[in-house]
Amino acid sequence: MVSGFTLHDTLAGDTVEVARWPLCRVLLMRDSRYPWLILVPAQPGLTELHDLSTADQSILMAEITRASEVLVALHKADKINVGALGNMVPQLHIHVIARFRGDDAWPGPVWGAHPAIPYETEALALALDRLRDTL
Amino acid sequence: MVSGFTLHDTLAGDTVEVARWPLCRVLLMRDSRYPWLILVPAQPGLTELHDLSTADQSILMAEITRASEVLVALHKADKINVGALGNMVPQLHIHVIARFRGDDAWPGPVWGAHPAIPYETEALALALDRLRDTL
Repeated sequence: MVSGFTLHDTLAGDTVEVARWPLCRVLLMRDSRYPWLILVPAQPGLTELHDLSTADQSILMAEITRASEVLVALHKADKINVGALGNMVPQLHIHVIARFRGDDAWPGPVWGAHPAIPYETEALALALDRLRDTL
Repeated sequence: MVSGFTLHDTLAGDTVEVARWPLCRVLLMRDSRYPWLILVPAQPGLTELHDLSTADQSILMAEITRASEVLVALHKADKINVGALGNMVPQLHIHVIARFRGDDAWPGPVWGAHPAIPYETEALALALDRLRDTL
């Protein structure tokens, strides 16, 4: 863990931490419309994928793969969407989202499509339990 | 090059080939609103990032980095957006897009935001020349 890393306030407010992996914090987006993980490399000052070292890029791809396979296993997703945008929150973060034919934004992207629908308390606890068991 | 790869018709229609790298075809999207590259790993049957071997994932990250750095160098982009969605075109392809504060979709994603504005013939030739010189 590199010192000096602090999760951006917007990401902290929009998500719940699920796990800490070798490179990334693994966060669950507070939007019950979609099974939606966000990976944040826990290093200060990153804004772009190409800011990561080559070694860390390989670790990131492994963590994206792991997150994707968990979403497929838990939710039988039709498609995984992976994106690193950062137009609104500059801290480097990577979305890994389970998509389903006929979901609220299908076939468009989820970003900006709708306001989030927060999880009910019990549903959030269940989602976190299932993720933590599988991760 | 693995045999049996054919570029999806939609990608072929929406883009112009710029280069062939060790893993990916490098394509320029026919949308003059944004400097927008698409990387397509030239292997048959891929739909998800996690379908790639670990070795090819590392090559892909290197090629995403190379494409991103070229867009930053040529266009002084404010942000690079990287995304693998595939909700409409199942063949695995990775968008690498130069974004600017105040561009037509800023700060939202470009996908689905507007119809493309095709390049004029001369502008397309110039864009391809500049890319090929820099790539």
